[in-house]
Amino acid sequence: MIIDCHGHYTTEPAAFMSYRKAQIAHFEDPSSPAPAMADISDDEIRESIASNQLRALKERGADMTIFSPRASGMGHHVGDEKMSKTWTRLSNDMIHRVTQLFPDNFIGVCQLPQSVGVPIENSIEELERCVLELGFVGCNLNPDPTGGMWKGLPLTDRSWYPFFEKMVELEVPAMIHVSGSCNPNFHMTGAHYINADTTAFMQFLAGDLFSDFPDLKLIIPHGGGAVPYHWGRYRGLADMMGKPRLTEHVMRNVFFDTCVYHQPGIDLLFEVIDVDNILFASEMFGAVKGIDPETGHYFDDTKRYVDALDLSEADRRKVYELNARRVYPRLDRALASRGL
Amino acid sequence: MIIDCHGHYTTEPAAFMSYRKAQIAHFEDPSSPAPAMADISDDEIRESIASNQLRALKERGADMTIFSPRASGMGHHVGDEKMSKTWTRLSNDMIHRVTQLFPDNFIGVCQLPQSVGVPIENSIEELERCVLELGFVGCNLNPDPTGGMWKGLPLTDRSWYPFFEKMVELEVPAMIHVSGSCNPNFHMTGAHYINADTTAFMQFLAGDLFSDFPDLKLIIPHGGGAVPYHWGRYRGLADMMGKPRLTEHVMRNVFFDTCVYHQPGIDLLFEVIDVDNILFASEMFGAVKGIDPETGHYFDDTKRYVDALDLSEADRRKVYELNARRVYPRLDRALASRGL
Repeated sequence: MIIDCHGHYTTEPAAFMSYRKAQIAHFEDPSSPAPAMADISDDEIRESIASNQLRALKERGADMTIFSPRASGMGHHVGDEKMSKTWTRLSNDMIHRVTQLFPDNFIGVCQLPQSVGVPIENSIEELERCVLELGFVGCNLNPDPTGGMWKGLPLTDRSWYPFFEKMVELEVPAMIHVSGSCNPNFHMTGAHYINADTTAFMQFLAGDLFSDFPDLKLIIPHGGGAVPYHWGRYRGLADMMGKPRLTEHVMRNVFFDTCVYHQPGIDLLFEVIDVDNILFASEMFGAVKGIDPETGHYFDDTKRYVDALDLSEADRRKVYELNARRVYPRLDRALASRGL
Repeated sequence: MIIDCHGHYTTEPAAFMSYRKAQIAHFEDPSSPAPAMADISDDEIRESIASNQLRALKERGADMTIFSPRASGMGHHVGDEKMSKTWTRLSNDMIHRVTQLFPDNFIGVCQLPQSVGVPIENSIEELERCVLELGFVGCNLNPDPTGGMWKGLPLTDRSWYPFFEKMVELEVPAMIHVSGSCNPNFHMTGAHYINADTTAFMQFLAGDLFSDFPDLKLIIPHGGGAVPYHWGRYRGLADMMGKPRLTEHVMRNVFFDTCVYHQPGIDLLFEVIDVDNILFASEMFGAVKGIDPETGHYFDDTKRYVDALDLSEADRRKVYELNARRVYPRLDRALASRGL
């Protein structure tokens, strides 16, 4: 089977987004009406998925998406902790409904109720709810809840440790994924996303997080940001800093997805990164929705690029299925319980 | 001939760095001794270059380096405008002395006296001094004088325009190069440098700077940050944003260097970026100084990677010489006046 490890619910019913608008407006001006979530029917959700992600998933020949709320919608830099918690619960509940309506094709990963200056411990309750009650298999962890201002501390700082402890206990990985950018220097999908990927990797390289958490598993999306292209730089920096080789120091715990939207990029990814560290993904529909005039195919139809690689059947199966089942053990168990 | 367009004076005499330390200490505590620059002899400078950059340049088979002060030393986020101006003048004067001692092998590019919150117009005087009096052929422009805090405005903002006007008038390009990072999230050479490259490119993509400055030339170092690896993403984003194709919209004015420290990265760079937009460079000695255990050669000996490409002689000459002479017209004229 073919598992896409990186999909967001970017086709939410309009009423859902209207709630968020009203929530922000009410926060900014408490005299404006309190937000109220309209009833959203199963049919509306079904339609928003069937005609979009599910259609494309089937057309492109994949089977299942590891699905989470819209990344730009997380908005951890907006509002306060209470507002973030409410919004996060609602967002995760929507994902849960999708997974209930399409259990064969979607499995949940949760957004976290992070907020500027709020300890990450406060996100544990929602992680536990999603994993233990809603059957989710992972989470998206925002390394910069300040939305492009980067006012927090690196992921290797001990302040993050209580959350990592809980992740290991629950056997769930995190995808390191920022949300929107309120910094005018950083375009969201063209700079902030990619910078965050590169930044997180370098934090892991410079630190020693995985000595403390040998079982922690983290996915860096968008093909690892700039890292594979500069793999020599990172190998050299590790050497200069007296770190073990990256294969031991970082790559036992860190995985890259295949959200790289052209063949030469995917070729490079597979040339320099061990196939055990690569998880198939498209982030469909995400940053780049159009058709590449050079190929006539969608930029984000990453399966075409992976299919074009000269991989053995065993390696192909790792990238499409087995690596995801290894990194997300709860996904593996859910599939196994269905005889898959 | 072979021109390396990206080298910093990272082997400065100790007395020079001692001055900087004293300058910062005096700024932070005015009761500490005022900084005084020790006499640095020509022999000291000659030795610092001959045994280092010049030796490696010759060993590796190149002829000339476009040379500028240490990037991490610019420190635009440190001190105030007066201090930055003094330090910048001294730094550029050191480069001038190197170019006078080794006129066949080094030509100058200047640091600018940028400071947080200070208009970029105030950097014009030093640019003119370096170009018109010291024979420099370009400058390093810091897109984030706040040192990783990114509190300023994008390079496409009109506040930068007076400086771009002067650059065009003087016929000098700028390399977009940040300095040190005071943000604990961003490792300097492993995250801040690469992020800044990616960020600048995306600013140019999202903006329309080159309609206003069709003759402006900018070099994005470190192989263009993450951009070539994600070239499909950027082509797709330009398409989604209704921009012309990148070849017209950005790549008439923007050039990437070859500071990518492994063969697969260089291969990708040349696969996706037009050879007219690539300038040979090593940033020797810079971020990565060691020997790659996989090849037995220095990571930053980028000439080996370029030599290994299957380029025509005409294309090779573009990358090694002609593109640099086109992007730096004052370099071209200086060489031509010597019959080169």
